Amino acid sequence: MCELLGMSANVPTDICFSFSGLLKRGGGTGPHKDGWGIAFYEGKGYRAFHDPIASVDSEIAKFIQNYSIKSSQVICHIRKANRGRVCIENTHPFSRELWGRTWSFAHNGQLKGIKKKLLEYYSPVGTTDSEYAFCWVLGELRKEFTEKPSSKKILWESIHRLCKEVAQLGVFNILMSDASCLYVYCNTKLSWLTRQAPFNDAQLLDADICVDFKTQTSDTDVVTIIASEPLTVDEQWTQMEEGEFIVFCQGKKEWSCLQ
Amino acid sequence: MCELLGMSANVPTDICFSFSGLLKRGGGTGPHKDGWGIAFYEGKGYRAFHDPIASVDSEIAKFIQNYSIKSSQVICHIRKANRGRVCIENTHPFSRELWGRTWSFAHNGQLKGIKKKLLEYYSPVGTTDSEYAFCWVLGELRKEFTEKPSSKKILWESIHRLCKEVAQLGVFNILMSDASCLYVYCNTKLSWLTRQAPFNDAQLLDADICVDFKTQTSDTDVVTIIASEPLTVDEQWTQMEEGEFIVFCQGKKEWSCLQ
Repeated sequence: MCELLGMSANVPTDICFSFSGLLKRGGGTGPHKDGWGIAFYEGKGYRAFHDPIASVDSEIAKFIQNYSIKSSQVICHIRKANRGRVCIENTHPFSRELWGRTWSFAHNGQLKGIKKKLLEYYSPVGTTDSEYAFCWVLGELRKEFTEKPSSKKILWESIHRLCKEVAQLGVFNILMSDASCLYVYCNTKLSWLTRQAPFNDAQLLDADICVDFKTQTSDTDVVTIIASEPLTVDEQWTQMEEGEFIVFCQGKKEWSCLQ
Repeated sequence: MCELLGMSANVPTDICFSFSGLLKRGGGTGPHKDGWGIAFYEGKGYRAFHDPIASVDSEIAKFIQNYSIKSSQVICHIRKANRGRVCIENTHPFSRELWGRTWSFAHNGQLKGIKKKLLEYYSPVGTTDSEYAFCWVLGELRKEFTEKPSSKKILWESIHRLCKEVAQLGVFNILMSDASCLYVYCNTKLSWLTRQAPFNDAQLLDADICVDFKTQTSDTDVVTIIASEPLTVDEQWTQMEEGEFIVFCQGKKEWSCLQ
């Protein structure tokens, strides 16, 4: 199992705190030693860092931990390889451009027979089931909508429908973003929590780091964190249900569906 | 004018030496203070680092200078903004997937009227002429070839033809790569040199760094560096001609055309 971490915020926020906890699991407190990657959105801008080595040993990971990148949306993934060798092109998050936005995607799980699905617009660079699934989902969206649909709900329903279809092939816990929203689909394991005023202290589960959110935030900040497993011990995480799809925008749960 | 730096090598090579010289020009010895970016290929794998601040002040640039990423192909760009505001999405190199490969692109120059060209497959995320031109070139290739042509020469001739067409709109010095080859088109200013045995010392023009290549390389290494202006004082750089297109593969000049 890979580990996922996502963030959605209404102000550019530094994810270092949550990231520190996650990194320990990449070869430290967890078995996810086959690389890691993190993608940050800054407005429409996108930057990603990938390293095909264990995150606890990664110089790039250490650098990012100490270097504050303030971002409104983040997707992070720590890999335990199932399918596909350990190399950069098999390291999540994957990204593709659709409708003039950079979409990014990270996945936890295995999918049986995904490569039988026909790809029309996007082709995988690596050999993972995950990137293949991402190419298929995005290609189907593109086929359905030549441009971004004006109704958000129509788009969200389509993404949900496509996620459900892929999830029939195995385990499909995903984080996906198009810079505007963070799309989260769970079929086995994902938890989330929203932090907003009044802020309290939080203690990381995996690393000996504690941050007093009162001194780090303003009263109007809203930040949601999504992770494979709760990252802190003293906050109330909500576990997602099987088949649940949630859209987070600007830190808030904007829409969800469990059908 | 922006600064370009490219590398093509037959073995994974550390570009830090050439990169150090270039970085000084981003707000140090040069006026290119509006961000910088660098893309590395490791096999088919691609990773890029972007920072929308001056490279001399960039923490990410300092990190990469000290952190050895061994790569077979590199594209680097230091920006002096002409069109488009200073932000991540306007920072070169740009990338898109075509035929299951990550293509990347960096450009020096201004193009008048490029946005009148119709885009079919790829849309820009930012507002630069450069990204628009890249989207157009890649979209035209995709339209012409539904999959990667089996004849390299046919592909290269098409890329060259498309470059010539864009170059009619202004200054179009570019570096482009698809992981296999480095495509270089010059219509005003680009120089290159190939380093191979017997290796000598090289002294950087902009930074007080000198590397003895004899101790850094093996006899079979072939490394080509392409830059807007020669980066070293004691090596023989070849200046490209107006309208010249060169394909570098594995460090060697594989094909060129000046028509």
